[in-house]
Amino acid sequence: MCNDEMAEIVRGHPDRFPAAVACLPMNDIDAALREAERAVKDLKFKGVQIYTSVNGKPLNYPEFLPLYELMAAYDLPIWIHPVRDRQVPDYPVETMSEYGLFLAFAWPFETTLAMGRLVFSGVLEKFPGLRFITHHCGGMLPSFYKRASLIPPGVRTGDVKELARSPVEYFRRFYADTVMGGNTAALMAGYSFFGADHLLFASDYPYPGGAAQSFQALEGVIKSVEEMPISDGEKAGIFYKNARMLLKLP
Amino acid sequence: MCNDEMAEIVRGHPDRFPAAVACLPMNDIDAALREAERAVKDLKFKGVQIYTSVNGKPLNYPEFLPLYELMAAYDLPIWIHPVRDRQVPDYPVETMSEYGLFLAFAWPFETTLAMGRLVFSGVLEKFPGLRFITHHCGGMLPSFYKRASLIPPGVRTGDVKELARSPVEYFRRFYADTVMGGNTAALMAGYSFFGADHLLFASDYPYPGGAAQSFQALEGVIKSVEEMPISDGEKAGIFYKNARMLLKLP
Repeated sequence: MCNDEMAEIVRGHPDRFPAAVACLPMNDIDAALREAERAVKDLKFKGVQIYTSVNGKPLNYPEFLPLYELMAAYDLPIWIHPVRDRQVPDYPVETMSEYGLFLAFAWPFETTLAMGRLVFSGVLEKFPGLRFITHHCGGMLPSFYKRASLIPPGVRTGDVKELARSPVEYFRRFYADTVMGGNTAALMAGYSFFGADHLLFASDYPYPGGAAQSFQALEGVIKSVEEMPISDGEKAGIFYKNARMLLKLP
Repeated sequence: MCNDEMAEIVRGHPDRFPAAVACLPMNDIDAALREAERAVKDLKFKGVQIYTSVNGKPLNYPEFLPLYELMAAYDLPIWIHPVRDRQVPDYPVETMSEYGLFLAFAWPFETTLAMGRLVFSGVLEKFPGLRFITHHCGGMLPSFYKRASLIPPGVRTGDVKELARSPVEYFRRFYADTVMGGNTAALMAGYSFFGADHLLFASDYPYPGGAAQSFQALEGVIKSVEEMPISDGEKAGIFYKNARMLLKLP
């Protein structure tokens, strides 16, 4: 239903909305695959969005691999949005997350965990053409990617040892959006890690708190990209050219 | 015992070790207070180190406040080191953290949570002279501090509303070390957020993996500070002058 409504909005306002991406019922992977196919073929959507976990399961579980295979075959991206609510306590002696820390900080942490699972489990190695777009500029990767290489072999588990390349090379394959609340220094760390061709402007609009706060947040994101000390060509890539290429838009 | 041994090392090699900081038995706050007092008064230590949680409890629990009061009275800093082991699963469907993600990414996340608890609970407001030194350049704060202000009031809990100032002002009061694995862009985000006078060089030496890897990691940290595009005076502050002032060294 919501994908149909999105398609209608895009059809009705092509000057405002060049494309849409699909929601998927990830609790039922067969239904998710059918809906992804319908969204791309019938609705002309340019990708799908999933969340950082599915009913508590990490994204590298084998049941989700057919979706990655499908989207790699379409050569269209998968957006990953973080999810965690107040019911997940930050400390074992408590029963919920206090002070809104789950939203402020656990969301980018969830993005980071999802990226880690997709890299270390070999999903990115298995599907070289697959493109994931991460929220909040790739979470903690721009700051902490060096730690991914410094994990002593003794504390690694799983099949990480079978990766053909350094984990960091796979982490760099993610795309990352510019929603950092208007923090140019953080965007520069993202630029340094992912490169200008893997950064994508995003508005995060509308934002909780109403129209005025949403607009202020949007202005802050635009300004933070404009203030990056990089070339105008790279900024044009971040603002629209990278997305145009990724989404195969005219 | 270990504090006595540290004191002996400092006494024996004053040219290599200008000061030490104390370990504390935080599971017994009265014993921790006695040991902090002994360390400062008798052993001439210049601070204490605690961890991001104590037997699963967050650092803002009232039982820990006497330590903050004592260290504020001494005008000496408290180092906070992250702690979380493999036994804490990253996903509810699992029983442990896989691929070493707890070490790579949950450690800086734990630092971030600890900072959040100390800010939003009002500990930093209550003790204006108290100085905390955080590992890994303040965890996620340099990248995600804007999110601390964007938490919609509806999802906040606790006494956050009673803070006299914006949460970000308190977060900026933390000190942050330079251990980011040699990531200059990430250090610049830390510089932008905390300011040059709140950054402190740290070696993280020795590092797991043996002498060669430890030395390589240390060289990487030194190089990453040297490559920061800031003044030589600010670099001197980061390398030693800030610490000399904080620790009241000659």
